[in-house]
Amino acid sequence: MRLTQALERAVQQGPDLPATIFGNRTRTWAQCHERVTRFAGALRDLGVGDGDRVGILALNRDDYHEFQLAVPWSGGVGVPVNTRWSVEEIAFSLVDSGTRVLVVDDAFAGVVPDVLERAPVVETVIHCGEGITPAGALAYEDLIAGHDPVPDAGRGGDDLAAIYYTGGTTGRPKGVMLSHANLLASALGSSATEHFLVPGGRLLHTAPMFHLADGAAWVARNLVGGTHVIVPGFTPASVADAIAEYRVTDVLLVPTMVQMLVDAPETRDHDLSSLRRLIYGASPISEAVLERAAARLPAAEFTQMYGMTELSPVCTMLTPDDHGRDGLRRSAGRAAPHSELRIVDPDDEEVGPRTVGEIVCRGPHVMLGYWNRPEETATALRGGWMHTGDGGYLDENGYLFVVDRIKDMIVSGGENVYSAEVENALARHPAVAACAVIGVPDERWGERVHAVVVTAPGASTSADDLRAHCRELIAGYKCPGTVEFVEALPMSGAGKILKRELRAAHWTTAERAVS
Amino acid sequence: MRLTQALERAVQQGPDLPATIFGNRTRTWAQCHERVTRFAGALRDLGVGDGDRVGILALNRDDYHEFQLAVPWSGGVGVPVNTRWSVEEIAFSLVDSGTRVLVVDDAFAGVVPDVLERAPVVETVIHCGEGITPAGALAYEDLIAGHDPVPDAGRGGDDLAAIYYTGGTTGRPKGVMLSHANLLASALGSSATEHFLVPGGRLLHTAPMFHLADGAAWVARNLVGGTHVIVPGFTPASVADAIAEYRVTDVLLVPTMVQMLVDAPETRDHDLSSLRRLIYGASPISEAVLERAAARLPAAEFTQMYGMTELSPVCTMLTPDDHGRDGLRRSAGRAAPHSELRIVDPDDEEVGPRTVGEIVCRGPHVMLGYWNRPEETATALRGGWMHTGDGGYLDENGYLFVVDRIKDMIVSGGENVYSAEVENALARHPAVAACAVIGVPDERWGERVHAVVVTAPGASTSADDLRAHCRELIAGYKCPGTVEFVEALPMSGAGKILKRELRAAHWTTAERAVS
Repeated sequence: MRLTQALERAVQQGPDLPATIFGNRTRTWAQCHERVTRFAGALRDLGVGDGDRVGILALNRDDYHEFQLAVPWSGGVGVPVNTRWSVEEIAFSLVDSGTRVLVVDDAFAGVVPDVLERAPVVETVIHCGEGITPAGALAYEDLIAGHDPVPDAGRGGDDLAAIYYTGGTTGRPKGVMLSHANLLASALGSSATEHFLVPGGRLLHTAPMFHLADGAAWVARNLVGGTHVIVPGFTPASVADAIAEYRVTDVLLVPTMVQMLVDAPETRDHDLSSLRRLIYGASPISEAVLERAAARLPAAEFTQMYGMTELSPVCTMLTPDDHGRDGLRRSAGRAAPHSELRIVDPDDEEVGPRTVGEIVCRGPHVMLGYWNRPEETATALRGGWMHTGDGGYLDENGYLFVVDRIKDMIVSGGENVYSAEVENALARHPAVAACAVIGVPDERWGERVHAVVVTAPGASTSADDLRAHCRELIAGYKCPGTVEFVEALPMSGAGKILKRELRAAHWTTAERAVS
Repeated sequence: MRLTQALERAVQQGPDLPATIFGNRTRTWAQCHERVTRFAGALRDLGVGDGDRVGILALNRDDYHEFQLAVPWSGGVGVPVNTRWSVEEIAFSLVDSGTRVLVVDDAFAGVVPDVLERAPVVETVIHCGEGITPAGALAYEDLIAGHDPVPDAGRGGDDLAAIYYTGGTTGRPKGVMLSHANLLASALGSSATEHFLVPGGRLLHTAPMFHLADGAAWVARNLVGGTHVIVPGFTPASVADAIAEYRVTDVLLVPTMVQMLVDAPETRDHDLSSLRRLIYGASPISEAVLERAAARLPAAEFTQMYGMTELSPVCTMLTPDDHGRDGLRRSAGRAAPHSELRIVDPDDEEVGPRTVGEIVCRGPHVMLGYWNRPEETATALRGGWMHTGDGGYLDENGYLFVVDRIKDMIVSGGENVYSAEVENALARHPAVAACAVIGVPDERWGERVHAVVVTAPGASTSADDLRAHCRELIAGYKCPGTVEFVEALPMSGAGKILKRELRAAHWTTAERAVS
């Protein structure tokens, strides 16, 4: 099975239906097919052969959708580059992946010289956008106009389809190699539950398209049929505007986006009633935010997806029904149909229900490996199971409770403290808009529970107040010993809180700060 | 991905939920897991190695469900035998597939000696059922009690999972080799549309489990989770009783069963309101029957599946929404997400919309091939596409209209007549309960359109009356030249009308009768 199969099916079943809506521009599936097959012809003329990497460094736009179809159509392998990265990191991923052709939009045309200097492997730059094509770059529209459509290169199944660089919350970015079959297995398995996308809907792309959380929804929307509504990036207003104007039915958000959307004063009067499904993931969501979101979006069902890039990315799903059941809202849900899930101890032995261990996963969606990293691949996939690095436990009905990144666990006075539990308690305080809990060095306890808190607009609180609040919800040794108030939390490109950065301020010895 | 993965997932997510309901017997998923892994241990002890064939000749029962999990768990390949066949045909399939272990139930214990005489390849017979185990056979329950659970053999993906013998409406039965990936691709792709089975429902197995129409629903029900309600075979009362007693939510029927169910006087008082989804396929359904079914089952959505064993088996789906749209109810629907669909001319060139040609299909669900038939495999799969042998056309939105088996097309006076069109016209006459249209030899026209008709209970009609009725709906040359009234139409095990048998009475020259 090929990723591009969905394009042909869409043309067969509704050539004049909208494929993409981007600002005032709508392109039908027939137009999309024409443009994709021509751009694929251009890529081949530029020397892209089977398995060659083609990168893209751009904000969300309709051309991004075409890129993601044209590259596999041409036989190439897509490398979506993280737009939040520094030039150094961008260049690292291009060199590491051996990307010789790079597509950039207006937002990144300016950094091309810097990127090329650090990544001389890039031979061809293609510019798409409304601005002027930089010197030395080719114009995307010229390439489409100047090339005839070519037939699909025919790659599919276990052939490499894309390399996604992991967000880099720990260590150096690694290129996750995903095959056509990997991506399709996750999308089909998720869709088979009836709680993911359904045929004919309109999916809003506001999370960055370079991240597989959005990429997976993109694959599924293509597979079951429908329309992509695309905005350049996330702001509460851009999401609310798009939902109201284009009657969006589905949206994928990370929890920080959900919080911003429902709390933003500027979106209070938007009509968001078309939204049927809100899919969230990438990190846990607090009960308090979930409640506010349900109140603001009464027509929407909530589905949580848990996974990681290495799992293409879906491992478990918490269904809308599950959200209504007491005690399950803190769960990450249950294994999706395609996904095998276990909790194992440090010797990789399976443990019983309610015992915390490492979350491991097996199935057709597990990555081919890390690009040019055979040792890290072997470690991650030992025994045939993807080791997520996340700690968690299952209940008696297979519901997964993610307690923490194993590396994020705090050991204080010999007790294990899972930061997620502390964060959930903090988030229930009305003055807390967002928070992160980390372990910091403590002479007496080894590590101390430390909270970093963003207060809600117009609200105020104190460390003592928050400690007293937590004390009513969780054990004393789990309550924050110290509290720090900040304007905003550092975020990765995927919307995950960068605890590494928070910790860096507190851990000065090299051996600990590196982890 | 493995077929047995679903068993482990079901145990993880609901060990005490019912897996099977068969008469008064309910078995949970935990019990099912225990029995399956023990029976797999028994099979290994009996010498079943990776890829060895294990047959089953039985009416529908809960043990059939276990068999279908235990055989792949043991590393073996299942061979579900057609229960409608003669001993000669049964023996042929066992010898052809090299089946050395055969499971039989009470209904077939009696023919074991005859089968063994003709199929000496069978070394071990296992008897499951309530009757006495025949001499020389092993008792299924003894094997389960006497063996410890074994781990899954680990076969999956492209490994051979089962050999299904085709119904044999034309020529000699062929063993269709299906891999784990084939069966899972069709089930996941079908389920991704939201119009197939949904999680947690109760699926009634009344169509024979040896046929892949039912087998595919079985795979999907396991994948998404839920319960199998099983009755030994189809009668209108058995279906209505099971739906009413066990609150069945889904049922898969062939059109002749739909007609019998809705017309049977003995089911008129049953409460069928639990039924949410009626899936039908295997042959076209007349509009008249569809209308009566919709009236009798107001809570049920209707989905048509078109496909064949070689496609694991789903190619297209006509959704519930489609059923409500004028002109689409005669369609077989559109390509399912996993399935590539084309119409080609005799040179395998794709033809445009509304041009009749052969229906071909490509995708991860296309069989590995015919068992020990390399030449027939190469012919069927030429160019990488499965050639269905069915004629049809697509409309501008990708809806498939199946006009006929290419071999069933009638050529009368130089005009092509598609029997399905004539059958649809006949079925709209109130006195017609069922009908089949074939071509018979005619001195003047070469072939003549001949109708074989079963009248509705208490109704009567005549050839002239039916001709006049058809003349108002279709062209004169398509109307039946001759009409024959019969008590019942000959059916294959899968519920398809055996036109070959109807034709045999009219075609006496060997060269034609063979086709």
